[in-house]
Amino acid sequence: MNAAPKNRAKWRNHLHAVIFEAETPAGKWFDILLIAAILASVLAVMLDSVSSINIRYGAVLTVVEWFFTIVFTIEYILRLICVDRPLLYSTSFFGIVDIMAIIPTYLSLLIPGSEYLIVVRILRILRIFRVLKLVQYMSEALLLMKALRASSRKITVFLFTVFTLVIILGSLMYLIEGAQNGFTSIPRSVYWAVVTLTTVGYGDISPQTNIGQILAAFIMVLGYSIIAVPTGIVTVELSQVSRKKATRSCTDCSAEGHDSDALFCKYCGAKL
Amino acid sequence: MNAAPKNRAKWRNHLHAVIFEAETPAGKWFDILLIAAILASVLAVMLDSVSSINIRYGAVLTVVEWFFTIVFTIEYILRLICVDRPLLYSTSFFGIVDIMAIIPTYLSLLIPGSEYLIVVRILRILRIFRVLKLVQYMSEALLLMKALRASSRKITVFLFTVFTLVIILGSLMYLIEGAQNGFTSIPRSVYWAVVTLTTVGYGDISPQTNIGQILAAFIMVLGYSIIAVPTGIVTVELSQVSRKKATRSCTDCSAEGHDSDALFCKYCGAKL
Amino acid sequence: MNAAPKNRAKWRNHLHAVIFEAETPAGKWFDILLIAAILASVLAVMLDSVSSINIRYGAVLTVVEWFFTIVFTIEYILRLICVDRPLLYSTSFFGIVDIMAIIPTYLSLLIPGSEYLIVVRILRILRIFRVLKLVQYMSEALLLMKALRASSRKITVFLFTVFTLVIILGSLMYLIEGAQNGFTSIPRSVYWAVVTLTTVGYGDISPQTNIGQILAAFIMVLGYSIIAVPTGIVTVELSQVSRKKATRSCTDCSAEGHDSDALFCKYCGAKL
Amino acid sequence: MNAAPKNRAKWRNHLHAVIFEAETPAGKWFDILLIAAILASVLAVMLDSVSSINIRYGAVLTVVEWFFTIVFTIEYILRLICVDRPLLYSTSFFGIVDIMAIIPTYLSLLIPGSEYLIVVRILRILRIFRVLKLVQYMSEALLLMKALRASSRKITVFLFTVFTLVIILGSLMYLIEGAQNGFTSIPRSVYWAVVTLTTVGYGDISPQTNIGQILAAFIMVLGYSIIAVPTGIVTVELSQVSRKKATRSCTDCSAEGHDSDALFCKYCGAKL
Repeated sequence: MNAAPKNRAKWRNHLHAVIFEAETPAGKWFDILLIAAILASVLAVMLDSVSSINIRYGAVLTVVEWFFTIVFTIEYILRLICVDRPLLYSTSFFGIVDIMAIIPTYLSLLIPGSEYLIVVRILRILRIFRVLKLVQYMSEALLLMKALRASSRKITVFLFTVFTLVIILGSLMYLIEGAQNGFTSIPRSVYWAVVTLTTVGYGDISPQTNIGQILAAFIMVLGYSIIAVPTGIVTVELSQVSRKKATRSCTDCSAEGHDSDALFCKYCGAKL
Repeated sequence: MNAAPKNRAKWRNHLHAVIFEAETPAGKWFDILLIAAILASVLAVMLDSVSSINIRYGAVLTVVEWFFTIVFTIEYILRLICVDRPLLYSTSFFGIVDIMAIIPTYLSLLIPGSEYLIVVRILRILRIFRVLKLVQYMSEALLLMKALRASSRKITVFLFTVFTLVIILGSLMYLIEGAQNGFTSIPRSVYWAVVTLTTVGYGDISPQTNIGQILAAFIMVLGYSIIAVPTGIVTVELSQVSRKKATRSCTDCSAEGHDSDALFCKYCGAKL
Repeated sequence: MNAAPKNRAKWRNHLHAVIFEAETPAGKWFDILLIAAILASVLAVMLDSVSSINIRYGAVLTVVEWFFTIVFTIEYILRLICVDRPLLYSTSFFGIVDIMAIIPTYLSLLIPGSEYLIVVRILRILRIFRVLKLVQYMSEALLLMKALRASSRKITVFLFTVFTLVIILGSLMYLIEGAQNGFTSIPRSVYWAVVTLTTVGYGDISPQTNIGQILAAFIMVLGYSIIAVPTGIVTVELSQVSRKKATRSCTDCSAEGHDSDALFCKYCGAKL
Repeated sequence: MNAAPKNRAKWRNHLHAVIFEAETPAGKWFDILLIAAILASVLAVMLDSVSSINIRYGAVLTVVEWFFTIVFTIEYILRLICVDRPLLYSTSFFGIVDIMAIIPTYLSLLIPGSEYLIVVRILRILRIFRVLKLVQYMSEALLLMKALRASSRKITVFLFTVFTLVIILGSLMYLIEGAQNGFTSIPRSVYWAVVTLTTVGYGDISPQTNIGQILAAFIMVLGYSIIAVPTGIVTVELSQVSRKKATRSCTDCSAEGHDSDALFCKYCGAKL
């Protein structure tokens, strides 16, 4: 009577190893196939949106789409079965991405067009880091995340300043140029200010009056200069994070700042 | 006879706590309501400028605008009443912003269109930092300001160089391309040079001749490269400012700004 | 009987010195002529593509092209002859560039238009560094390469994030704007997202709806901010690489890479 | 007999003090008037190029132009008279700028249109740094120059790489897109590649085919990423230059890295 649950546990453990881990050959193959399926399905959706392809191969691509959606649905159910706490998994980052990757196709039965939303499936590809055993990459990504989080307050202050700037400069431009030059409303002028300050410069709206062009030139030089601010912030944080990573302290003289490959303290010569 | 002034002082102190501080629940609520009012009034002005919305809801939005202007006027008067030195307040940064946030609406009775200027009201939102007790954010903002002020001389030299460059390059381009290719005057060509050097690139004016395109390519690569200069300046200053922040003060002469590896005070020579 | 091979060896050594080295006057002149020939031939191809020039001087330029191709073919054969291991050379970077620099002209007999591919010839100009004895430049280039290689993992993570972002944001934009506003398919919308995120901003496609413009503004500010990430990465790596370059080597174990303030070797503990 | 030369020397010395120095009140006033004259004359030329202004005030502006040119000519002659070695002065940077600032007006008698070249006069305004006693600014400018010169080799390697890249990528794009999509010749395609790589993005030429858009997206991401290289280079050099500036060494323990305002060695406490 005890054997059945044990067998079931074994079966679940095996499934867990295949689906969630990449240590066994089966697990590795599963992950590679999964990534191929994700890429293929995203590509199918992207091609389906091209009208010339849609006319010719629309039916085939719809079948492909449904095939992958059903495959991913089965996979999602298997994932829920073989984890110990399905609820915890389904509310985790990957759990949410997994469900979001299948919902749009079903939703498209009710709301036509929503099937294109399944491109969020591309987020599942982040698993690629695990498959390829890219531990080094993961640690680099974590380093970047750490630096960005450390600088998030400064970045917030910066973005807040940019937000205030574009509203004031956009409104000023609306008063100067007016509707006849394409600045038809304040929101549209603010949009123009964002386009200009970030040095994107579509050119769909551009100042025509002399004062407008002077103000525009000012905004451009401003945008060109203040890009230095986020860059400076991230650079300083990154340099601090990567310096900290490398730092060990000497047990003898408690000096810090030794390189990660140092064997002896560079200040007192004691063994580290 | 003494009670009345005392009462009045009490009433003023209470008002001051509500309007200027965010320690009491009443003060916190006042600030939150104020920010909501600022955002709502700015949004109303922005929407009012969209012609399709203006036609339908123009009357409502004008009422909203006047409502907020009267509220802010009353608030401004109350601020003047409850501070000890009204003149000092009215000439401070926030005092000027406060008066500028209400004047445009009254001015619009005389000069139509000037009501859009009340978007400067958005500057009042800087109070948000105080409300949310964002002391940390304030210190980060101060750090950024400090780094920018420290690098202001280098930035000035840089901007002066850019200013000289765009005048010379713009005039050169005017001679090369001429009016038939859109470079109708030197000021317009200088404007084009700013658009190109800052890598904005609207495309409303673009060189057509071969020599013009070669010069334009040169300006682009120049602009692409010299953006490194303000970035480098701000990064270096930011790294110095944030290094200094982390340092210790001397117990003897209480001087600050010692490096993290200093053993002795650099001003009085005392052991740290 | 032994003299002939010896003579031939001498002749080959001499040829090798002229073609591959720049120590002798002959070798120097050979390299200078070679670079002039490369530049002239690339210029000829570029001019040949301009239709107005092609009509007038097409015949002359074709002759020039064939002349240089034959010269470079002879040169390539000579190079193969005078190196000891021709196969090794022909599969090296410069060997591949050399053969790619002559193939397109011959190929143009079969496939018209492919002659323009010979602009890859410009890669041969990298030899310029050797000619001008730009050892210093080579070491600087190596330093840059080292910094880029050291930061390649972080850059990969960054590019991967950008890749995921543009697919999701492009698809979202396709749903919001739709074909009537120029976003005719997801691939085209993804292309637009790249144009916007990198702050290039052609303006051939630009959002027309309000929600589309808000999302576009968000993408711009995002692109404007995250450019700080690769910049920060490269700056930190470059500063580490150039700091290491400046350091001293241990007299005991001859290990390198000690910090400028180190008193003891970090590998063997000996006094520096 | 000796008095006359002495008197003449006195007169020359006085003139020299007024024209070349800014220590005396007369010298200061001379410099301020000069800068005002430079700005006024440049503004006159710029306005003269605007056709609507030219029609109305053309005659006046021509008079203004000639007035300033004659004033500057007299000034130039006076400069030559009062310096000890006129030839040395006339071949110095400011000497060349001074002569270039007057030639175009005279030249315009022979070649109409060349009068616009006198905008190079704006370079004379660099004297502003001396007038305003901006010694601090000068030292900052020198610091920037030093950092740029230190990084000039790396920047050269970078620009050389960019140069090679745009030629190859531009030619490739010419083959892919062809004349019917605006890529009419290789030089024009190379110009497009520069516009795209530097993230300027005019949009006057933009890829239409799928492969072309994929390659364009690649170029954009490349340009977006490699901007990190010059930025990194300049930042590292600037940080080294500004660190060196601040460094003094202790006479007691010969430790380095003291701040410029330090009075005592931070490592041994000895007086600096």
